[in-house]
Order: sequence, then C-alpha cells, then structure tokens
Amino acid sequence: MSGEDAPAQQQNAVDQKQETKPTEEPKTEPPKTESPPAAAAEAAATPAATTEKVPEEETFTYRALVLTGYGGYDKVKLQVKKGKPTLKAGEVLVRVKACGLNFADLMARQGLYDRLPSPPVTPGMECSGVVEAVGEEVTDRKVGDKVMVLNRFGLWQEVAVVPANHTFLIPEGMSFEEAAALPVNYITAYMMLFDFGNLRPNQNVLVHAAAGGVGIAATQLCKTVKDVTVFGTASASKHETITQGGVTHAIDYRTKDYVEEVRKISPKGLDIILDPLGGSDTHKAYNLLKPMGKLITYGAANMLAGQKKNLLAVAKNWYHQFSIHTLSLIQGNKSVCGFHLGYLDGETELITEAMNTILDFYKEGKIKPRIDSTWHLEQVGDAMRKMQERNNIGKVILTTEPMPEEEKKEETKKEDKKEDKKKEDKKKDDKKKDDAKKEEKKDDKKKEEPKKEEKKEEENKEEPKKEEK
Amino acid sequence: MSGEDAPAQQQNAVDQKQETKPTEEPKTEPPKTESPPAAAAEAAATPAATTEKVPEEETFTYRALVLTGYGGYDKVKLQVKKGKPTLKAGEVLVRVKACGLNFADLMARQGLYDRLPSPPVTPGMECSGVVEAVGEEVTDRKVGDKVMVLNRFGLWQEVAVVPANHTFLIPEGMSFEEAAALPVNYITAYMMLFDFGNLRPNQNVLVHAAAGGVGIAATQLCKTVKDVTVFGTASASKHETITQGGVTHAIDYRTKDYVEEVRKISPKGLDIILDPLGGSDTHKAYNLLKPMGKLITYGAANMLAGQKKNLLAVAKNWYHQFSIHTLSLIQGNKSVCGFHLGYLDGETELITEAMNTILDFYKEGKIKPRIDSTWHLEQVGDAMRKMQERNNIGKVILTTEPMPEEEKKEETKKEDKKEDKKKEDKKKDDKKKDDAKKEEKKDDKKKEEPKKEEKKEEENKEEPKKEEK
Repeated sequence: MSGEDAPAQQQNAVDQKQETKPTEEPKTEPPKTESPPAAAAEAAATPAATTEKVPEEETFTYRALVLTGYGGYDKVKLQVKKGKPTLKAGEVLVRVKACGLNFADLMARQGLYDRLPSPPVTPGMECSGVVEAVGEEVTDRKVGDKVMVLNRFGLWQEVAVVPANHTFLIPEGMSFEEAAALPVNYITAYMMLFDFGNLRPNQNVLVHAAAGGVGIAATQLCKTVKDVTVFGTASASKHETITQGGVTHAIDYRTKDYVEEVRKISPKGLDIILDPLGGSDTHKAYNLLKPMGKLITYGAANMLAGQKKNLLAVAKNWYHQFSIHTLSLIQGNKSVCGFHLGYLDGETELITEAMNTILDFYKEGKIKPRIDSTWHLEQVGDAMRKMQERNNIGKVILTTEPMPEEEKKEETKKEDKKEDKKKEDKKKDDKKKDDAKKEEKKDDKKKEEPKKEEKKEEENKEEPKKEEK
Repeated sequence: MSGEDAPAQQQNAVDQKQETKPTEEPKTEPPKTESPPAAAAEAAATPAATTEKVPEEETFTYRALVLTGYGGYDKVKLQVKKGKPTLKAGEVLVRVKACGLNFADLMARQGLYDRLPSPPVTPGMECSGVVEAVGEEVTDRKVGDKVMVLNRFGLWQEVAVVPANHTFLIPEGMSFEEAAALPVNYITAYMMLFDFGNLRPNQNVLVHAAAGGVGIAATQLCKTVKDVTVFGTASASKHETITQGGVTHAIDYRTKDYVEEVRKISPKGLDIILDPLGGSDTHKAYNLLKPMGKLITYGAANMLAGQKKNLLAVAKNWYHQFSIHTLSLIQGNKSVCGFHLGYLDGETELITEAMNTILDFYKEGKIKPRIDSTWHLEQVGDAMRKMQERNNIGKVILTTEPMPEEEKKEETKKEDKKEDKKKEDKKKDDKKKDDAKKEEKKDDKKKEEPKKEEKKEEENKEEPKKEEK
C-alpha cells in the first residue's frame, strides 16, 4: 500500500545498479542536450552482442536503461550491468522482450513523479518477457512462461527480478509488444471506468488524449458496454483513427473549445470524465458533469511543457489545481476521484481481478492494444519525445532486441539530420508560433516512421522461432 | 435539474397557502416556545372533522403543516387550507395518508436548507396516499391507485398535487406508513451505495447513524450483496436493534473513537463510508478510506445543535468543511462524492430506475422499512424533536388520520407534564452535563411511546377497509 512494501525487485534493481562499472558510462560522446540515443547506443554496443551467449553467474551481463539525473531526454542512458540478480522467495527472473512507455516515465525524468527513487535508477512500469528462473515458494510460474509484468519501476532493462504476483500469463496469440502495451493503460482505464466510474449502458464519457495509450484503452473498454457514447479529444490528424477505434465524437482540442463541443451534443453534460490534464481542465471537467457524474483525474499532463521541468508550467498547474468543497459536491451530486496505478502497488488482489477481466476481453476480441511504434533501447530518447510531443497514436514500445548494425548507422545519420533540422527550426521559430512548429516536426517524423515500422515487422516475424527453441 | 423546473405542485402549494384564511391561525394559545402541537390541534379541530364529507370545489378544505418562519419546533403549524387545487397536465392529486420526516426538514426549519422556498411554505419530501384525481395526459396512474410520492417539498398535508412521474405504485402488502418511510431513505442509500459506491461482494462499509432512516436502509441494502461487512455507529442502547438489522460491528460513537474501532477490525481501512455528519468527521472518513475507497458525504448533521439555528455549530461545521485537492486524491486513489436527493429533482429517470430496484428488493423480502413511531400532524413538533435528539430507531412518520378526541386530551396532559419536566430538567442542568440529560429525556419518552404505537396499530387495521370502498 505504501512505500514500505515496495517490491523486492526494487532493492535488486538498486543492487544491480551499484554493480555497474562506472567505466561503462558513455565517455566518448561530446555533451549534447537532445540526442542521447546515439551516445547510449555506442556505449552499449559491445556488451549487447555478448549478452545472450554468456549466461554464467559471474560473467552475466545485461543492458539497462538508467535515469542518471532529472532533465531532458538525454538523461536516460543505456548502460551494461554485470552479475546475475539473485532471487528471493516469491520472485521470478524475467528475460524482458518489450517495455511500455508511460506518461509517469516522462514525469519521472523531470523529477515530477515521487514513486521513482532518486537517480540513478532504472525506470519502467511494465514489460513483457519470458520467465528465466523462479525463486522458492513460486508455484504458479515456471521457466519458459511468457508473462507481462507490472511494477512500480525498474523494467526498462533486459533482465528484471519481480515478485511472481506482479506477473500475468500472456494469452495465446498476444505478441510481446501487445503484452508490454497492456498492463498500465488497460488496468488504469479499467479501474477508472468500472470501479470509480461504475460505467453503465447509455452513459456518455469524455476521454482526453483519446489517441494516447490510456485513451485508446478507455475507448475500447467503453465499447464493451452497450450504447456508450465516447467523446474523444485529439488533434485533427488523428480523428480518423480514433473514430475507427470507437470514439463517437472526435474533438480537435487545438482548434475548438471541447466544453462547447460536448454541450452542443449533450447539453446536460457527461456521466464520466477521464482527466489526465489537471490544472484548469479539471475545473472545466467538473462543470461538465451531469448530476451523479464522476470526474476521474489521473495525471497532470499540463505540467509537462518541454523536455525539461518547466517551472512555470508546474506552478501554473499547481495554482490552478482543483480543490473541491464537500458542500459543492453535495449540491451538485457529483463525484471527484483520483487515480494513479503507481500508488496502487500492494493492492495485488484488486489489480489481478482487473487484469483477469481485461484478459477475458482480449480473448473475446473486445480489446486489442494498438502499438504506435517500437524503438530499440538505444532510441529511448526519440521514443519519449514522440510520446511527449503527442505524435503517437497508441502505445510507444521499447524492444530489447539488439539494434542491427546498419540501422545504427542510419540512426547516426538521422541524428545528424535532426541537428540540421533543429537549426532550421530555430530560424523558423522567429516567424512561426509554437503549435505550427510542432505540427511540422510531426509531419517530418511521420515520413520517417513507416520505414522503421516495416523493419520492426520483419524482426517480429523472426522472434517466435527463437522462443520456440 | 435546477430550480427552474421545480414541480408544478409547488406553485399550487403556494397558491393554496395564500387562500388560507388568516383567522384560522391559532389565536387562543398563549405564546409558547416548545409546545406547538396542542395549539395547532385546536386550530385545526373543526375543519378536520368536515374535510371528508364536503368534497365540493368551493368548500373543499384540507389540513396542511406550514413552516411559518425559521426557528424551533413551534415554527411548523397546522393550518386549514380552502379550495380544491386544480390539476395541470401530467399531474395527479393525492389524498395523503402518511408522510416521512427527514433530516432536510429539520435543517429547513432552521433555515439551513436552500431547496425549500422561504416561509410560509409546506415542507415534506415524501408521503404515501391514494390518487384522487388525475390531470390530462396522465396515462399510467388512475383514481384509486395507492402511491408513494417523492417531491422537493410540500407533502406534509392532507392533499398534494404532484407530477405523476413523482409517484410510484405501492406494492402488495406494503402499508402506507412503510410507503411513506421508503422513498427518501432508500433512494438515498441505494444511489450512494450502488451508483457512487459501486458496492461489491466482500467490501466493508461504515454507516454513521446506523439507527436512523438512511442508516437502516443502507444496512439492509448492504446485506443484499454477498459478504459485505457493515460498521454502524449508534448509541449503545440501539446496538441490539441495529445488529439484528444487519450491522456487523456496532460502535458507540459516544464512548469510543470510531476510527480506532474500525482500524482494530479492518487495519487497511474501508471501501465505502457514508458520511451524514460533515465537518471534522469528513476528514476522519477520508483518512479511513482504503485505496479505491469511496467517501460519500450527504449532509451536515453536525450543524444541527439544538432546535434553533446554532451559529457556532454552523460556523464550526463551515470552518472544518472538507476540501480536497486532486493531487491528494490521485496519490491516495480515493473518491469523494456528495449526494443529496433534494438536488436531484428533474432526474426522474435515475430516480425511477433506483426505485424499481428498491421495490424489487422489497418484494423479494430483502428490505423492509422500519417505523420508529407514528405521530399525528398535530404532534409534528414532538416528531421532529424525537428525530433531532436522535431518539429514534428507524423512520419517524406523520399520519393524516384525525387525532381521536381522547388522545388530544392526553396530549394536552402530556404537554403540561413536559412543561413540568422541562422545569425539572433546568434544575438538573446545573448538576449534569448535556449528554446525560438527553439520555434521561429519551428514557422518559420511551415509556410513553408504546401506548402511542399500540393505538396507531388499531387505526391501521381500520384503514384498509376505507380504501377498498
């Protein structure tokens, strides 16, 4: 429930970190502010190649992403750790295949998330992989089990030690990427909608950031209930996708006032509002509630402005933070709830119950995680940027698959291009406004994306063979 | 939803009130502060006798309780109104048999409830009776239907005009008293537990004032769900009754710290807390919640101290009023809800849905309103006192049956006795503390109660015959 019963894996993670040789830190890279992946990639190149072939206790090494300090994307570095983690009773060792990125990871990087211990520390709340060893007293997991994992942190690495009851068996037909995309977003959406929200037929729901991980999960879960209307906010370019995914009314929050748009269609207001934004948007949401309506706030994305901590944004969010008197709640017949999965560790029973229902939905074909893009560990900075700049539709995934040499070269070229691009951007900055600039960056990136996606798919085809061995 | 769509019956009530002859106000009674019923009874004696036999439009009269100004129990007076109310489309005229008392009525008398228009006005949010006339466009109610009624106010009178969709058919075997006891308490408890609370098997619930109307309804409704644990607060003398009624752990809030008592049994805290108290108790409740717990606050009973508005109590309640930041909700994974049925008028669909489930529970024998005591309209002051001093176990009911002459004489004697009693009390007051005094008063009253209850039962036996005509 509290920090006291933090999972054993955390302590391991810390131990491992201390075993990391300082010489493995990237040295050759000149100080950069926005292009860490190349640096990290170089640092990790040699050890990565040897990881799979030398599993002996003493020479056991694995790659891990480490948050080295609070700040921009470059603060997450790829390091090589040495020494096979030991298992305590009730724990399992998971060979990680894919990891999910979450908003909390972005907040954590800026020092805005208190569930992550101080750097240096390995972030990552969810992953998928294969059980490689089981500790004593573990009865329901065995070596070779494909599992997805939910943990407070520490999963962005090739090997993770976690309590067995933090793992869930991956059902038939679910890929490792899907499995890494599922836990945080779907449990969050499920508990908000079905526990706090008590969603029932004919109700209407507002889903902010409907193209994000939680947004897509929430939309799909809403559709498991009869005649639920989903209002979803997203920039216009994402409307087609989210509408196909189940959003009834897509609203472009950049060009329209979402409150007005909702009122046009539902003058009485809304039954459930999922609010990841915080600040003044929480006030708007509260006023948009019907009697017996539920506002469920689960983040403060408005605090994230830019890649480093933006004190003005934080202060503004704090200043506008929603505070509510019971008298107002009584007279309005309203409910205000707060949710964050990161503060629910210890509630294994609740989480397992939710996960079982979610997996049933998956087996029945009612839900399916949508993967936006998959990135190598070396590309974690780009992956985070894509999410933070809201250029994703669905989940951003990291894969632990080693990066092919030719791709690394390409990556370096891209980094150079990005540098040029940045310079160009800076010039344009004087003429154009922020929003317009973002749109352009996004378009440029989109052109690059399909190539990456295709390559990824080829790699995926190979993967199942390896596991069958 | 708001005051704009207040039921038509309210306007009628106001019209009727204006037709009341000022000469019907009690004149002969010397000014008293605490014994209005006798006065009101005298005033109403003659018209009451003629009500049933002269139903012609012009000479139509009926008795009505009227709040004449904010203050003590004597501010609610029994008056006789003249002129048959006219029906608008969609309305029905109900011949009222029994009325329920609610905490909001007590708050209203002190001027602490903004859903009741300014005095003079007839209070009363619920009643039962027989449909005597139907307006145009009413298709689902007919003359002779036995109904229970839920309205914003205006039901403490012999005749009430209400929208047909504010009435619910009384099921077979339910007495008028039970029917008058049901709507407010059971809909309130139902919506709090099953809509906001999302009550599920194995959960635990704290019910404050577990011997009160909502408390008993909530306890019974909790028991419709498998393995729900109910913590109920009440003074020790009521423990046997509430335990028999379904409370798992009865806690004497007068002698024990209920927070400690709950923690002893459920160290992790509670899933649902129903809080009618407000002020500092809301803070305690919030801290007692488990992760994913729901605090549902539905009143500010702590504001009621004494029969007249107690500015200190009001100020204290205001000062301690619970206010919550979203950040705390997020980190705690908690929900804070406010509920008040009085602000839900207009939400006919929600209310009808809840009522249908409640009536199903009744038919299945899962719930049964518990009547504490039944009082004549003339005794409304005593009835309110009983409730406000927390001497009731279950619902306090008013009946519109005329008071038998011999009972009236007894009543007058009792009033005299009470005056003596009060003088005695004042003397004792110097020696004893407030609490002790209340306990004694309660005991005295209990001795008188059984007689009244027996008489009531005899009257009830006669009633069904009349209705069959």
